[in-house]
This record gives sequence, C-alpha cells and structure tokens, in this order.
Amino acid sequence: MPLDPLIALAERLQALCVGRSLTVATAESCTGGLVAHLITEVSGSSAYFVGAIVPYSDEAKASMLEVPAEVLGAHGAVSAQVARAMAEGARQRLGAGLAVAVTGIAGPAGGTDEKPVGLTYIAAADDRGVEVRRFHWAGDRSANKRESARAALEMLVERASQAGA
Amino acid sequence: MPLDPLIALAERLQALCVGRSLTVATAESCTGGLVAHLITEVSGSSAYFVGAIVPYSDEAKASMLEVPAEVLGAHGAVSAQVARAMAEGARQRLGAGLAVAVTGIAGPAGGTDEKPVGLTYIAAADDRGVEVRRFHWAGDRSANKRESARAALEMLVERASQAGA
Repeated sequence: MPLDPLIALAERLQALCVGRSLTVATAESCTGGLVAHLITEVSGSSAYFVGAIVPYSDEAKASMLEVPAEVLGAHGAVSAQVARAMAEGARQRLGAGLAVAVTGIAGPAGGTDEKPVGLTYIAAADDRGVEVRRFHWAGDRSANKRESARAALEMLVERASQAGA
Repeated sequence: MPLDPLIALAERLQALCVGRSLTVATAESCTGGLVAHLITEVSGSSAYFVGAIVPYSDEAKASMLEVPAEVLGAHGAVSAQVARAMAEGARQRLGAGLAVAVTGIAGPAGGTDEKPVGLTYIAAADDRGVEVRRFHWAGDRSANKRESARAALEMLVERASQAGA
C-alpha cells in the first residue's frame, strides 16, 4: 500500500478538525509513529495535531500513558483493554480532544496461537467515550503497519465528523 | 528521497545497538514520528527501541519532555538549546541509553527572516554528553522531513558506533 492515499485521509482529518476546533493526539505501539508521520506530512497540521507517544516497551506504556500494570499483566500489551487505556492516556497526557491508540503484532516475530501476527486493536477516545476495534491483518510487517495506520486515520475521521454534531 | 535508504540506515543502527545492548529513544518535532516509523520498519527493533515522543505543540515539549519554559521562551522551539533539552528529556523520560531529538521548520509556513523554512537542529544524547548540529534544508515539507530523519539516523549510527569503544 503506497502512503499517498493515507496522506489524503490525513488531509480530510485536518479539514474536519480545524473546522471543528478539535485537537488530536496519537498513541502508537505497532505503527511506531507512522500515523503521526502521515498527519504531519500535511502543511498546517500543527493547527490541530498536538503530538504522539510511541511507547514501544511495556515500561513506556505504563510510564508515558499511565496504562495500569495490572491491565498490562492481565490482558497483555496487545488487547482491547490496553488499546482503550492508551487512547485515554494519550488524550489526557497530551491534552487532546480526540486521541487514537494502536497496539498490535506487526510481525514477523512475536505471534502466538492466541495472539497471531497481524492481530491489532485500535481505540479512539473523545469526550463521548472510547470505541475499540479489532483487526487481523495478513500482510508483512510493513503492510500491517500501513493497514493499521489507515484504520486509525479512518476512525479519527469518523469520530471527528461526528464531533459537535 | 525514497524511504528505503533510510530503512537501511535503521537496519545498521539496530545491528550496532543490539550488539552493544544500547537502547534508543527519539523526540521528534518537525519529523513528526518519521524517525520512529523508520526504526520500527525493521523486524526485531523492539529489542533496542524503547519509544518516541512527538511533542508537536510547545505545551507538549514542556509537559512530555520537561523542556523548561524559560528555554522555550528565550530561544524559541527551533533552537540548539531546545534540541538539547528535548534529547536529554527523551533519554530520561523513556529510560534510553541514547536519544535523538529533532526540531525544525518543515515548511512551507512558519519561517521568519531569523529562522527560515528548513532550519533544523538535531541533538544526540548519551552517557558521554550531548551533541547538537544545525542544518538548513532547501526542499519542500516532505523532503525536509526526510532529510532531517536521515541526519538523525546518521547521528544515532555515529554515536552508537562510538558507544563502549
């Protein structure tokens, strides 16, 4: 998947958020900053994008996003519960109106029977609450990252278009 | 500039860091997470990459990286002093042995006579101290981000190859 269609999604997000005075933050584990990179490819993104946290280690998820150690211990880093906590943590820590969080197994290593390569949870949080979606991508590492980034941007666009409605 | 040569740099960084048990973090303003995205394109990067902070607003630079408000006020976000503080903050907050920080004006907006579009400061911090370099890119927004990411990865590779020497 080329990156250009994803930048078009980021342009759409920017138009929606600037029009609604909505600020955005990201918390990215398996995408490793790709969503923030795409958002900031668009000139003027600093008008609504406040920043990103890429907590690649479990320690960083706990210290930077206040994901409770018991949630990480009980459900594992790749879980709906951790995605939800990451989105809420990013929204709070970065002071954004809308936050998205991505946690998954990009591969090729790290998969198990229970949590295979490609399994990804994406959460979006705003003042109306948190929504979590589960995905299972079938590509290689780079393709899985791009699919996750696309899904994260689509969730942001959806939430942003509903904001203030 | 295509991204593939930059991923090759990230592969070299990973081999150096894993061999030296050196952990790495990034603090990225104008690159917007691109360095972290490139680092995490390489399978196995979680063995040494602990995470990134992308503080796109001044508030996030202060709250997430403990960049002192008086340093931001006296020198502006795009300055050698802020690059240095961001690298030290990322190293400390993310608990990494080696951290790189990037702050600059990607453009096309945001430039002034004193601080033109393309002006970028990159700092690398490890247990031997902090080094800051000044660059002035001449490309468009996307090209400037890539040049900054390349320079940041090159500084990381340099520092990592000197580590433990």
